[in-house]
Parts: sequence; structure tokens; C-alpha cells
Amino acid sequence: MVSKNQIKLIHSLQQKKYRNLHDLFVVEGEKGIVEFLEAQFEPHILFHTDGFIPKNHYKQAILINDKELKKISQLKTPNKVLAVFHKPKPKPLSKKGLTLVLDDLKDPGNLGTIIRLCDWFGVSQLICSTETVDCYNPKVVQATMGSLTRVSVIYTDIVNYLKQCKRSVYAATMEGKNVYKLTLPKEAILVMGNEANGISKAVLETANSTLSISRFNKTDKPESLNAATATAILLSEFNRPSTQMKG
Amino acid sequence: MVSKNQIKLIHSLQQKKYRNLHDLFVVEGEKGIVEFLEAQFEPHILFHTDGFIPKNHYKQAILINDKELKKISQLKTPNKVLAVFHKPKPKPLSKKGLTLVLDDLKDPGNLGTIIRLCDWFGVSQLICSTETVDCYNPKVVQATMGSLTRVSVIYTDIVNYLKQCKRSVYAATMEGKNVYKLTLPKEAILVMGNEANGISKAVLETANSTLSISRFNKTDKPESLNAATATAILLSEFNRPSTQMKG
Repeated sequence: MVSKNQIKLIHSLQQKKYRNLHDLFVVEGEKGIVEFLEAQFEPHILFHTDGFIPKNHYKQAILINDKELKKISQLKTPNKVLAVFHKPKPKPLSKKGLTLVLDDLKDPGNLGTIIRLCDWFGVSQLICSTETVDCYNPKVVQATMGSLTRVSVIYTDIVNYLKQCKRSVYAATMEGKNVYKLTLPKEAILVMGNEANGISKAVLETANSTLSISRFNKTDKPESLNAATATAILLSEFNRPSTQMKG
Repeated sequence: MVSKNQIKLIHSLQQKKYRNLHDLFVVEGEKGIVEFLEAQFEPHILFHTDGFIPKNHYKQAILINDKELKKISQLKTPNKVLAVFHKPKPKPLSKKGLTLVLDDLKDPGNLGTIIRLCDWFGVSQLICSTETVDCYNPKVVQATMGSLTRVSVIYTDIVNYLKQCKRSVYAATMEGKNVYKLTLPKEAILVMGNEANGISKAVLETANSTLSISRFNKTDKPESLNAATATAILLSEFNRPSTQMKG
């Protein structure tokens, strides 16, 4: 059975302020929840209809019916299991390798796709400005397809972070240097900006270099690439072997 | 004023079968509509509240009020202008350069993003299997951000098309050859598959080579990249100067 208080809690976690207040977030669907459990995320509540629950969590899981699941689910087609997890403790900021920084990215789908890209390209930390969309937003969690269990997302004052860091900072801008002509270091920070306004002036001032993806058609349109596809191409450029500096 | 028949027509164009029957599709929003008008798409109906209409179409435009616009719009926040356009006549299949082929891509957002990528990378034709989501689906039109005026999208039997074409066919698969280690020709066909099932067997049999984007983390997860971000990286690889074969 689902109690009234549980329903109230789960609904409140749709909002960032309650996720922050309780340090909790919601995951839906068998596959995603198994990934969070296997990655040692601590479940606060675990509801299921007849969904798969790993053995060591079976005692904790509460069997509910489809009607009850529908009451607490945000999905059009609720998927057997719904869990509330404790947010993980923030990890210390990484000072090595390639780090991605987001300056006020707003679209949940874009953030989800970017977390999945970080996972693919071995970028273990994603540093976000405090105005970037919350990574525990249900739409983001859904779009990451489990990658949120492997990529640590940290919200901080990115201007301060970038000023202190010792690696080269590359800012992606529309007028930046042609990325296809550059040799890129393995130790670096890549900054991507907001979907509509790009990178803010204060952040841009911390950059050592700018980057852009050249347009290959012969007109001045389209005006831009989508934030997630631009991130995909730039992460690929930082990782592709022949682009990297040696050593 | 909007007539009952016009409301009925516009609502019916949400569905592919009526878009095909009437050879018409809907575009919403000032910016998008101006792009279609400037690209010489022929408007069938042009409604606006107090939106911007290019001078040469002003006579044709019908002034309506916000309440009427709300009745015909599919947007949460209707945006001043709504137009019904005639679909353009299909262009002959291109036999040169880089062509992208989609095998049963289903997600409207992905198709929109891919059309925008084609535009950016100068791929003027996108060939889709007949089961691929319709490019005149309103969600696709919205996601292309005007790129649909510059990229021609053709639905056809792609197995037949690929069998007849004289350029090398590269199929993107999970187990394909590492794209970062290949030299790619300027004249080629890149095939991307369905989001869940990849490329079908019949299509794969027409390919001269397979391609994949290597995963850079040290685990076997995530299982895949999103279809649009994978397309972004592969189109970038086909276009980046140092990857291309000479001549």
C-alpha cells in the first residue's frame, strides 16, 4: 500500500526545492532502478507491481497494485517499479583529465543527453553552474538512461571553479577557432553555454581559448547546432586519437 | 475569421494520412513561417494575430484573434502566426557528395535534430525508409528550426536505393569499424538505424563497410549513444578535413 504521506512526498519531488530539502529523487522503470541499485545508490522507498527487484533489496520492496502505481507515477505508461533514492554525497572536484562545464543549460533533454555523452566518452565529472537545470529532474533522470549512476554532476560557482583550475579552458562559441584545425590536450576543460545565449561574459573571461564547429554548407544558416549535438562533436574531437597532443 | 472547415483541416493535418491525402503540412511561429515563405514554399492558408508577415504575402494573410489562434494551434503558447503549406515536389535523388540514409528512425525530436545537422554539414538530401517518422510531423517541423527549408527529405524503398547507388555505403553499427581509424571518402552514403533495433538485416547487406564510435570509458556501459548525437559525430567525421581522402 502507498500511504498519503508517501504520495505527497513523491509528488513534491517533481520540484527542485523539495528534492533539495529532502535530498531525495525519483527514478521510474525496472531497468533504470536496477542500474541505480547496482551502483550502490541508497533507496529510500521501493515500490513495485510485479517488477524485477534485485534479491538483496527484495525485503525492502513494497508490492502495490497498478492503480496505486498510476497515482504516484509521472509516466504515461507506468513501468512496474518506482523508487525514491537518496542523492549521493558530492565527490571532490576532479583536477585531471577532461572535464565538461555547463553554463546555465536549461533543457532537461539536453542535460540528459549530455550526461549520457560524458559516460560514453569517459568524462567522469560534469560541473554545472547553479542555474543549470537540476540533474535529478525526472526528465533528466529518464533521458540519461542510467548514465547518471556513472557520471558525477556537481553544481557550483563555475566562474570561481574555472579561475582556480590549472588546466586549459576551452569555451565553445559561435565565433571560436575552428576545432578541426586545433590540436587538443588530454588535460582540459570544455565549457558549453546556454541554448539561447551561449556562454556568459564572466565565464568567457576565464577561457584560454575558444572553439567552434565549422558550418559546411555555403550559406549563413542554420544559425546554430543543438547544444547536445554540439557537445557530442566537441567531446568526440577531444577524445579522437589523432587530434590529441602527444604525451 | 477561421471557418469550421479550416479548423477541421488544420486539426486533421496532425495525422500523417491527412498530410499525405492533402499534400499539406502545418508550421507555427513567426520565425519558422518566414523561413518557409522565403524559401518559396507555397502557402495554402496563412493566419496571424498581429504577427510579422513578409510584404508580398500580406494580402493573403488572414487576421484572427488570440482565441481563434488557440483553437487551431498545437502549441502550449501559440506564437502569432500559423500557416498551412503545400508540400514541395520531390527532387530527383542526388548521386553526388555525402548522403544520409535513415532506416526506420521513429523519434520526431531525433529526426528534427538530424535534419538540422544535415543542414549544418551541407548534406542536401536525407533519404528515409518509408517507416521512418514523417518529416512533416509538427514536432519534427518545430525541431528542425527552419532547416527543413534547406534539406530535402525523400521517403523511398532504401534497400532498392542502396543497391543501385554507386557510392560506398557505410552502415553505423555497434560492432562496426572504429571510425577514428578510418579514412573516409567525400562521395559516400552513411546509414543510421532505428533507435532500438539499429539497422535491419536487408539494409546491412547493401553496406560496403560498417562504422562505430568507440566508447572511451573502461566499462561496457552505456550501451549506446542517442541516434541524433551518434549522427552528429559521424557527420562531423565525414566532413572534418584531415579525415577525408584526398582528391
